[in-house]
Amino acid sequence: MSNPDHSQDAKDRYFMMLAIEQAKLGLYSTRPNPAVGCVIVQAEEVIGQGFHAKAGQPHAEVFALKDAGTKALGATAYVTLEPCSHMGRTPPCAQALVESGVKRVVVAGLDPNPQVAGRGVRLLEQAGIDVTVGILTAQAEALNKGFLKAMRMQMPYVRLKIATSLDGRTAMANGQSKWITGTAAREDVQKLRAQSGAIITGSETVIIDNPQLNVRSHQLGIAFEEVPRPKVVILDRRGRLKHDPESDYQLCRRTDTLYWCDDDLTELLTLLVSEYQCYDVLIEAGASVAGSFLQQQLVDELIVYQAPCLLGQQARAMVNINPLSLAQQLRFNIECHEQLGSDLKLTLLPV
Amino acid sequence: MSNPDHSQDAKDRYFMMLAIEQAKLGLYSTRPNPAVGCVIVQAEEVIGQGFHAKAGQPHAEVFALKDAGTKALGATAYVTLEPCSHMGRTPPCAQALVESGVKRVVVAGLDPNPQVAGRGVRLLEQAGIDVTVGILTAQAEALNKGFLKAMRMQMPYVRLKIATSLDGRTAMANGQSKWITGTAAREDVQKLRAQSGAIITGSETVIIDNPQLNVRSHQLGIAFEEVPRPKVVILDRRGRLKHDPESDYQLCRRTDTLYWCDDDLTELLTLLVSEYQCYDVLIEAGASVAGSFLQQQLVDELIVYQAPCLLGQQARAMVNINPLSLAQQLRFNIECHEQLGSDLKLTLLPV
Repeated sequence: MSNPDHSQDAKDRYFMMLAIEQAKLGLYSTRPNPAVGCVIVQAEEVIGQGFHAKAGQPHAEVFALKDAGTKALGATAYVTLEPCSHMGRTPPCAQALVESGVKRVVVAGLDPNPQVAGRGVRLLEQAGIDVTVGILTAQAEALNKGFLKAMRMQMPYVRLKIATSLDGRTAMANGQSKWITGTAAREDVQKLRAQSGAIITGSETVIIDNPQLNVRSHQLGIAFEEVPRPKVVILDRRGRLKHDPESDYQLCRRTDTLYWCDDDLTELLTLLVSEYQCYDVLIEAGASVAGSFLQQQLVDELIVYQAPCLLGQQARAMVNINPLSLAQQLRFNIECHEQLGSDLKLTLLPV
Repeated sequence: MSNPDHSQDAKDRYFMMLAIEQAKLGLYSTRPNPAVGCVIVQAEEVIGQGFHAKAGQPHAEVFALKDAGTKALGATAYVTLEPCSHMGRTPPCAQALVESGVKRVVVAGLDPNPQVAGRGVRLLEQAGIDVTVGILTAQAEALNKGFLKAMRMQMPYVRLKIATSLDGRTAMANGQSKWITGTAAREDVQKLRAQSGAIITGSETVIIDNPQLNVRSHQLGIAFEEVPRPKVVILDRRGRLKHDPESDYQLCRRTDTLYWCDDDLTELLTLLVSEYQCYDVLIEAGASVAGSFLQQQLVDELIVYQAPCLLGQQARAMVNINPLSLAQQLRFNIECHEQLGSDLKLTLLPV
């Protein structure tokens, strides 16, 4: 005996998966907007699809409805995030769905943006559209961790990335560190950067490594101009660095680099959301900066690129923290472990 | 068009896989003998199976032939190691196969034991039996790394096991280390021990941790008395420890503990093969002992149980080695990475 509800649920999950695949196409280009995908389905056939590609441009629903044309009448729309109900730089998508004549809208999760927050669903329901919320919510939300956390808590989603040896060392005692991990791991870092509204580093790292922290987006399979450049923040308590178009340090030549001279890292993160709309923040710095963010429990995700090598006990430690006993250790859950080239990538969530 | 050779090869691999599963049943109990399995097949049906369970007892072929009985006439025997041709504590298995009337024998790999080394296959062929060698050789040999290396090179297969944090620390600065890894990882260590003819530790570890290094075989799914107790070797250059039935140190109360006071670790390993038939050697010791074996390239396999936690830069280093530059780092290939409970198990082979 087939269960019609069960079968409808399976179909909904299938088409929502296609909508999520659409959303992923905008993952590196929509900042500060969330990545959203939409699929229009008529008689179990996809008749339109679209994704949000860039802030200021039309949303996913608009592209999908345009793709479907008049066939949208009576169809079902699958959207990975609640359609917006407010007039922003583009007209409200909920209104566009109503006007298209779709009879059902399936939404992965509500938009916590206070300008939406259930109003999109209400607008659809008031127009007599059948609305289902909560299909593949976790998978859809995984694409927009920063946006969702910022809307809910006014704090960014903070990723700390560290490249290390098997024995937890990031460089030789003399500072030599190029390269511990292989090319596949280093290319993967480009994705982390492309996803980030801001990259935080330390003055020490700038002075020693003189990094560019640029996004080499040709490795992401999209055109360079489509990836908004992450804002660079230099933690510079001692005021050792400042903007100078002729500086030896590449980051200091940039006019938009933010120098943070205060001790308060929570205030910095709050500011990055409120002032700069940086919802995903990546930390690429040394052991002291990493230790500070970890000790203050400001890290949402630790990403370790671990090379299968031993550098020895004189080499530099990966994180400067000083738990006094085993009970004070910092613990994580392993979210994912995968091999990238010859290295391991570990994604860890603080317990 | 079906390819008869290809199809025969697929069948051979299938039945050899079953023979390997048989061999695994003896993995922890056959030392110093290799783990061997045998399956007898008549008209594509398994009519007999057996494995070598314990040194001094009959070999896999004998049990499998006994299981098959008179049905073995005209059958094919799959054996994970070349049948022996010499009279040991038991009669030669090649002879038993000839007498059983099997018409074909498939062997995963030759036995490098100088008392066999191709003679088993020759004996079968001289009796008119069709012999195929080389089916699933790598998978079969993976069960007997120690035995095979010892027969070929008169050196044991050396595994170095280290339990560490994400930042490569094995204990807090004050020595506190119970427990960094969880129960699943610690139970997995029992398998490493049960596979080992000898366990090498250091006097420092004995004095600080007073370990038993026993095999808690109830976690292996076999009876305790079936696991031969691994020989314990204490590296004791400074002569700090000696046998004493009343010693505070559990390992020093054992009469069969070997104290090694010499610097030469290669000589120790050679001795363990020639004198004690210890073909699989496990090192469970501190950072100095681990570093010595690694620096001298005496480690065949590094097994890291990595807990997803950070202990900080004051905690104890995992390996004492002192490469002077990145070029002198010790590099490995990742053979396997798997999650055990909340921890990772990494199996690494030196490059």
